[in-house]
Amino acid sequence: MRSWLASANEEGCDFPIQNLPYGVFSTGDGVPRCGVAIGDRIVDLAVCEARGLINAEGAFGLPQLNGFIAQGRAKWDEIRARLTELLAEGGDESLPLVAMAEARLHLPIRVSEFTDFYASKNHAFNVGVLFRGPENALPAQWTHMPIGYNGRASSVVVSGTPIRRPMGQLKAEEGPVWSPCRRLDLELELGAIVGGDSELGERVSVAEAERMIFGYVLLNDWSARDVQAWEYQPLGPFQAKALGTTISPWIVTQAALEPFRCEGAERVNPLLPYLQEDQPGFYDLTVGWSLNGQRMAQTNYNVMYYSSAQQLAHHTSSGCPMRVGDLLGSGTISGPERDQTGALLEMTGGGKTPVTVNGEERRFLEDGDEVGLFAHAEGQGYRIGFGPCTGRILPAKE
Amino acid sequence: MRSWLASANEEGCDFPIQNLPYGVFSTGDGVPRCGVAIGDRIVDLAVCEARGLINAEGAFGLPQLNGFIAQGRAKWDEIRARLTELLAEGGDESLPLVAMAEARLHLPIRVSEFTDFYASKNHAFNVGVLFRGPENALPAQWTHMPIGYNGRASSVVVSGTPIRRPMGQLKAEEGPVWSPCRRLDLELELGAIVGGDSELGERVSVAEAERMIFGYVLLNDWSARDVQAWEYQPLGPFQAKALGTTISPWIVTQAALEPFRCEGAERVNPLLPYLQEDQPGFYDLTVGWSLNGQRMAQTNYNVMYYSSAQQLAHHTSSGCPMRVGDLLGSGTISGPERDQTGALLEMTGGGKTPVTVNGEERRFLEDGDEVGLFAHAEGQGYRIGFGPCTGRILPAKE
Repeated sequence: MRSWLASANEEGCDFPIQNLPYGVFSTGDGVPRCGVAIGDRIVDLAVCEARGLINAEGAFGLPQLNGFIAQGRAKWDEIRARLTELLAEGGDESLPLVAMAEARLHLPIRVSEFTDFYASKNHAFNVGVLFRGPENALPAQWTHMPIGYNGRASSVVVSGTPIRRPMGQLKAEEGPVWSPCRRLDLELELGAIVGGDSELGERVSVAEAERMIFGYVLLNDWSARDVQAWEYQPLGPFQAKALGTTISPWIVTQAALEPFRCEGAERVNPLLPYLQEDQPGFYDLTVGWSLNGQRMAQTNYNVMYYSSAQQLAHHTSSGCPMRVGDLLGSGTISGPERDQTGALLEMTGGGKTPVTVNGEERRFLEDGDEVGLFAHAEGQGYRIGFGPCTGRILPAKE
Repeated sequence: MRSWLASANEEGCDFPIQNLPYGVFSTGDGVPRCGVAIGDRIVDLAVCEARGLINAEGAFGLPQLNGFIAQGRAKWDEIRARLTELLAEGGDESLPLVAMAEARLHLPIRVSEFTDFYASKNHAFNVGVLFRGPENALPAQWTHMPIGYNGRASSVVVSGTPIRRPMGQLKAEEGPVWSPCRRLDLELELGAIVGGDSELGERVSVAEAERMIFGYVLLNDWSARDVQAWEYQPLGPFQAKALGTTISPWIVTQAALEPFRCEGAERVNPLLPYLQEDQPGFYDLTVGWSLNGQRMAQTNYNVMYYSSAQQLAHHTSSGCPMRVGDLLGSGTISGPERDQTGALLEMTGGGKTPVTVNGEERRFLEDGDEVGLFAHAEGQGYRIGFGPCTGRILPAKE
């Protein structure tokens, strides 16, 4: 299928008519509202709704997508079908479009809560070796449950937001010192956006969880490794992960990814029934990251061991209520090879083996460095892209 | 100082004119609005505002206190002074009062995010011995920083809400089993309510943090100890702490607690400058808990090692943004003796030494058990009480 908008049909375009990701944008008038990316344009959904072309009870005029997402899967399907019709060849060429180059992109959702998981076995093992040695690298429960921890929703920012190198307590010979972080790192992840609520004391099955996921963004869980090493036992990472988490502005819907559904990593042991799925929960998605414009690593989302649906189901296993706008980080996506790792910690073996970036040595991130994440699925004659997810490091405020 | 309302002057009353804690209530009409507890009554602040007696820009008509709290300390002081004037002997006896016995109490704030700390050295040591043995009981960084983890705001409920025993993965000989939690526990804590915002990349000093705290509630961080033991390494507790966290409905303001400010536990080593305080950050508060009506333990909040202000300052040490409505759990409050411990895990030595409750043996909580927390400060001829914070255990849904 092709669009009447030429830029949507160009080879390598992230946003063809098969994608239609949702975001929040503003233009000169400064009023954030909801839109859908198509080619090099944004469909202004607030104006579409005002013209009576679509109906989401006014939710598209709001500065985040939560109101639309909360209307549920039948509404998501209805709007997607209607936009496909309007944007297809022979559709409505008078649709209100905004040039993406002239728009400012905002955080697409009000993040209710943020949970980060740990679902790449390669990453869990590699990082485990560095933090705890090879004997204790993979925690005993790792192949039985998606290990996760609650992150800090207030620190989630949209692509392009500068990231300040944090200060923190670092371990030293004679007790801790107060210092700028010396081992600042990225984490290449996908983030799943929860599109429904659940009640306290209720559990959600994996099948129900699949239907509760609205879509996915790229997610960079910036990490202060030295702060983390000193603080994280026994209650987990805290300030090491609160300096900022960057997400991409466009939410690629589960509907757009459906043709790319695939199996994940091979299971080491059977899962308990509440985590078993009746369909594969992963996507054949190329993912990777660059540093100062140089491509550093590329792998596939299908290396992961637990899907977002399994993570969401586990998240409710104790009866924890979930809410529209909850963000679930997949965990760092790392393949087995060095050029497939989603964090510098892994790539440099804990800073021991530097990498070369545009002729300069890097063990961890330096001030001024810019990290970009990417992800895309390749369809028949089209690509489902996620668009950019970038952040540049500012020097610490001492 | 005394009130014209006789019940506020009775001996042992939790809510004399010196207290004036804020909450959210509804009556027969079912519309939640803000109020202040006085004696056995609630001052209907929405009606007070409608009558022009006080002014908070309409915030008291809302179903949570966030809008009022966000107006800042000068407004808190203004309203407290005005209510004191109206409620004192010689004040306004036509104030709109509601009988507390006829009101339903709601969650007083929309909890933005919930963080739980670990600031009683007795508790940290006792629990550390049980989880990791005496050599590794107190983590190396414990005396240098307030260790905390992010909890789940969506699971915070108001006193009286039933708590469902969770299902979960429990460790067993031949791999984990799916089972109702067998080691369900309480945690006696105070919760600090953050009353101001901070920005990404900015830090808050301990002195600024003191001024950002609006007040305190009782907090029971229900814990599934067996789920916790299997899941918590390396990223910290997750589902073990997401089954529900109960808070008391009345927020006792920092202003009401000010006369009871005192030192906490003795320091083992100097703190880094960003954690040092120029005034004591604790309160002389009797705290304790009961099980099925029997008093089980009583201690004092002044056993704690880190104050809420220090915890809040540390929370921003990496530049993490804080928001009005953030809830900071103090950590379990335990004195050194068995009848001063704030959790059954400690009191029974990990379930080894049962306690007797109304003639029945208890190692952990049974279905139907009701836990109540209490706290109060004793002034000259008055008591600043927190009111009840209760929850009853429902059987698991298998």
